[in-house]
Amino acid sequence: MTTAPLDSTKLVIEKTTNPKEVLPKEKLAFGKSFTDHMLEVEWTAQSGWGTPKLSPYHNFSLDPATCVFHYSFELFEGMKAYRDKDGKIRTFRSDKNMERMNGSAARASLPTFDGEEFMKIIDKLLLADERFVPEGYGYSLYLRPTLIGTTPALGVAAPDKALLYVIASPVGPYFAEGFKPVSLEATDYAVRAWPGGVGAFKLGANYVSCIQPQSEAAKRGHSQNLWLFGEEGYITEVGAMNVFFVFQNADGKKELVTPPLDGTILPGVTRDSTLTLAREKLNSNEWIVSERPLTIYEVKERALKGELVEAFGTGTAAVVSPIKNIEHRGEAIEVPVEDGKAGAFTKQISEWIRSIQYGEEDFKNWSRVAK
Amino acid sequence: MTTAPLDSTKLVIEKTTNPKEVLPKEKLAFGKSFTDHMLEVEWTAQSGWGTPKLSPYHNFSLDPATCVFHYSFELFEGMKAYRDKDGKIRTFRSDKNMERMNGSAARASLPTFDGEEFMKIIDKLLLADERFVPEGYGYSLYLRPTLIGTTPALGVAAPDKALLYVIASPVGPYFAEGFKPVSLEATDYAVRAWPGGVGAFKLGANYVSCIQPQSEAAKRGHSQNLWLFGEEGYITEVGAMNVFFVFQNADGKKELVTPPLDGTILPGVTRDSTLTLAREKLNSNEWIVSERPLTIYEVKERALKGELVEAFGTGTAAVVSPIKNIEHRGEAIEVPVEDGKAGAFTKQISEWIRSIQYGEEDFKNWSRVAK
Repeated sequence: MTTAPLDSTKLVIEKTTNPKEVLPKEKLAFGKSFTDHMLEVEWTAQSGWGTPKLSPYHNFSLDPATCVFHYSFELFEGMKAYRDKDGKIRTFRSDKNMERMNGSAARASLPTFDGEEFMKIIDKLLLADERFVPEGYGYSLYLRPTLIGTTPALGVAAPDKALLYVIASPVGPYFAEGFKPVSLEATDYAVRAWPGGVGAFKLGANYVSCIQPQSEAAKRGHSQNLWLFGEEGYITEVGAMNVFFVFQNADGKKELVTPPLDGTILPGVTRDSTLTLAREKLNSNEWIVSERPLTIYEVKERALKGELVEAFGTGTAAVVSPIKNIEHRGEAIEVPVEDGKAGAFTKQISEWIRSIQYGEEDFKNWSRVAK
Repeated sequence: MTTAPLDSTKLVIEKTTNPKEVLPKEKLAFGKSFTDHMLEVEWTAQSGWGTPKLSPYHNFSLDPATCVFHYSFELFEGMKAYRDKDGKIRTFRSDKNMERMNGSAARASLPTFDGEEFMKIIDKLLLADERFVPEGYGYSLYLRPTLIGTTPALGVAAPDKALLYVIASPVGPYFAEGFKPVSLEATDYAVRAWPGGVGAFKLGANYVSCIQPQSEAAKRGHSQNLWLFGEEGYITEVGAMNVFFVFQNADGKKELVTPPLDGTILPGVTRDSTLTLAREKLNSNEWIVSERPLTIYEVKERALKGELVEAFGTGTAAVVSPIKNIEHRGEAIEVPVEDGKAGAFTKQISEWIRSIQYGEEDFKNWSRVAK
């Protein structure tokens, strides 16, 4: 193959002549308003990656036979850009997103690319749309890198055309409730992912099947599903987030637990950051940090014993989302929440991550300044 | 809810002023060329179904945030229209497709509709594009009813806008090999569907994950995957078709077997037709027709004993596709094929279905004439 790689130096920039109004922060809704510009790079099996384009936000014109509409050739990433105290624009662990996006692409029979080259043009988008990056904790510019198959044919086969693109939406806190703890419904009648399936990849295909059970849970007053797996009731993910529990062990230590990456769980960047920060910053005489299988029955039993201390979800959109309650087969598992708010570790990890995201702490080069 | 239902009497027709050339039959490739027109019906949560439109085939203009690109809000049907000996255009068991499409829609948090109303406008499309329906066995006009979510927002939620559409492609035999038997690779490292998942619905989400294993199988000389499930090696589907086996039992009877609809298998119209025709037309003193679980190990064992007589896939695109060989963990399971062609029952069922599809036999009102 002598097809062209993705090359950031070829970026062609066409600035808008009709700039949008920047919405006031209180009017921001997640993923509903977008910036002035977008990025696009076309790919063909024959030629490889084409010329990257930064141009005014615009509709796509696609043949109704395009394979993305029929066989779900689509995958995405969720990333955020933050404005630091000096006004610079920063992304958080974007190398992890690029790595995961390439893994998703390979699994979905879509083309892979050099992640750093892609990040270089994403940086240019951030600079072009700099005025849309809001200030303040909880506010950011949500980036949606997306890759879709664009072959206009109905044969079930790997696409020979694709489009890599990025749109950006200024956002505030994901849940309208803000940092208020949420209630979950433990779900076993619908199963999100399976060994040998694609639950570990960020494919659109993993999302559509979760909406109907989410609507059902919402009718019963819960904001998300806690996805269980198997007769044992293994805990996997919550909604579209990873999930963590804090237990008080009998030996006096606390244990931070999240399920292991067994192929059914999305390898979240916030999940990995939480584990890394916990292992580096918590006192190991007082804490155990575990990636291990755990079941809803363990959580229930330990809640009854008073050993369940905290629970929270992690994900790019919501960052850290405290959990107050899990309903499982008609029984409520109550998670203690201080003053109806997040627990101590939930607050702590949220602050640790936030100070890196907003450039207040330099940690392992996790924060990248757009330039 | 007082939203509008799908109403065929509201159909607005705009005929093309630039008719396409009809390709000669030998140039037809599956799903690559399309007719002059298409159907569209928009839906909103607020108003329900809008005015159905029949208009010249055209591209869609969609916001890059449209939810179909991100969370796989998409599902489809595969149907065919046949030209009978009197020149009339016929569809086959379209009520089954409409029923399944509505089931898929409900599972995918997309709107449902009255299937007969939808069929009435599909009939109008068939009449408008009548000259594209090729003549002759194996030739037909493939119809692709599709439903996509069109909300232009990134929040993970049920779409409040959708588009139901139909495009049509004149086709010949699906496999370039025609009715020549194909070789399969029994696949257990990747899993197509699972209990509590969406394998029984015709969602785009079920297809993307199957392409990479299909490409792997193709590298090893196989044209499709035989999807296994569980440690027991249960047989589920082949490629994007249902699968049947014929065994010679020790008591002298033959058994036609296909796996049961346990939620992991697509309820194929050709599958149901095969079972129904076999039950009605085969001599029950000589045949048993079974929907029952079967494993790759049973197939292997019975092949070794000389009891495996035939195997074939069924689906709308290929109709009936004979199987000659299954490779499982490095071992070949040979299916006897007469003169390198299909077995006797495979040929028989193919002919039974064909004569109904092409209007030569009237059976249970399975054939519908467009008018």
